[in-house]
Amino acid sequence: MKKIEVIQNILEANGTIASRNRQLLNEHKIFCINIMSAPGAGKTSLILQTMKMLKDKLNIGVIEGDVASTVDAEKVQSEAKAVVQIYTRNMPESCSLMAVMIESALKSMYLDNLDLILIENVGNLICPSEFTLGEHKRVVISSLPEGEDKPIKYPLIFVDADAVIVNKMDLLPYVDFDVATFRRSIEGLNPEAHIFQLSCKTGEGIEKWCSWVLEQTKANVTKQ
Amino acid sequence: MKKIEVIQNILEANGTIASRNRQLLNEHKIFCINIMSAPGAGKTSLILQTMKMLKDKLNIGVIEGDVASTVDAEKVQSEAKAVVQIYTRNMPESCSLMAVMIESALKSMYLDNLDLILIENVGNLICPSEFTLGEHKRVVISSLPEGEDKPIKYPLIFVDADAVIVNKMDLLPYVDFDVATFRRSIEGLNPEAHIFQLSCKTGEGIEKWCSWVLEQTKANVTKQ
Repeated sequence: MKKIEVIQNILEANGTIASRNRQLLNEHKIFCINIMSAPGAGKTSLILQTMKMLKDKLNIGVIEGDVASTVDAEKVQSEAKAVVQIYTRNMPESCSLMAVMIESALKSMYLDNLDLILIENVGNLICPSEFTLGEHKRVVISSLPEGEDKPIKYPLIFVDADAVIVNKMDLLPYVDFDVATFRRSIEGLNPEAHIFQLSCKTGEGIEKWCSWVLEQTKANVTKQ
Repeated sequence: MKKIEVIQNILEANGTIASRNRQLLNEHKIFCINIMSAPGAGKTSLILQTMKMLKDKLNIGVIEGDVASTVDAEKVQSEAKAVVQIYTRNMPESCSLMAVMIESALKSMYLDNLDLILIENVGNLICPSEFTLGEHKRVVISSLPEGEDKPIKYPLIFVDADAVIVNKMDLLPYVDFDVATFRRSIEGLNPEAHIFQLSCKTGEGIEKWCSWVLEQTKANVTKQ
């Protein structure tokens, strides 16, 4: 019981810091997307493709969450206006980014220069669903080789998603993945979610996703 | 700080229960393997293939850990001598199986009847590395579409593994995965780990893995 109380306290504290992060982002007219997935589903590749397509239209910063290693931060370095690496290893909740980590990251970025921040969460379909970071939109990537049953097995992260990306569509001929079943599961859990089928490798479908990101970012910035 | 202490207490308590589980397994001459991976890497498929190949030689039980849904338990039901489903949803540590969950599962199984128990952990490369369950061997599956950088990004789970399985070898022509780099990363982190390259879909490499499982099980059972 004691542990459950402590966890509730942590989630409450996280929510308070997340609200502060959101306020700071709004003050600076920055739109922020939290990108979540299982390891290897394509978070870094999606960020790279999004930056390539939108870098002339938006100033994009990236916050990279990793248990260890800087491989992802290195990959996005050349395309982003600003990159901050967060290591979660040795932290009590190493399985997800938390609002307090984003708070420190935002402090180290020159915010007046940015329109959009993409957060790459730790590769995990469970823990990140519990921690809001202050983001405006939550995006979950599922990739074809993982199988179409992921929404049934890890429902929580899909229920809260604003958009669900089906990545690695180029592998459709080689893996068992029923796109219709996957879409039906998402529609059952979360009928409001936008679903984008794409391949970060071939670029197929990236334009549609980027149009949505641009539209959402502009709608948010002009609103204020 | 309070949270860190609570987590240390949890890990200690988990270790105590894990030792009890191990003792119970040894008393009943049961060998136990904890199978861990990211979501969709092929834990259920590996268990199915292992049971198909070894069911005439060993009596195999399966403990299925899932956040939600019974899809995996249903798949293995026909091949296993005994199947227990554990749901971790709504539990304080829903991102991993814990020793206390295995303790309850073992109580509900007829242990005299079993030689080998395969535990399918929750799909996650982070949390399960922190919780021993009482198992004799720890196995991590990495699948080709996840990319060869997983040992660098999630080192802890690979450091403790007795065996590392490289699954979905049938996808090698279609994905960017450098097997040599992956093997070098594992050898750097954990030179003792056995590495098995296989495909649960085509059956390639399954025999070698099953020989190892059989050999390990027999060595353990006769030792006592």
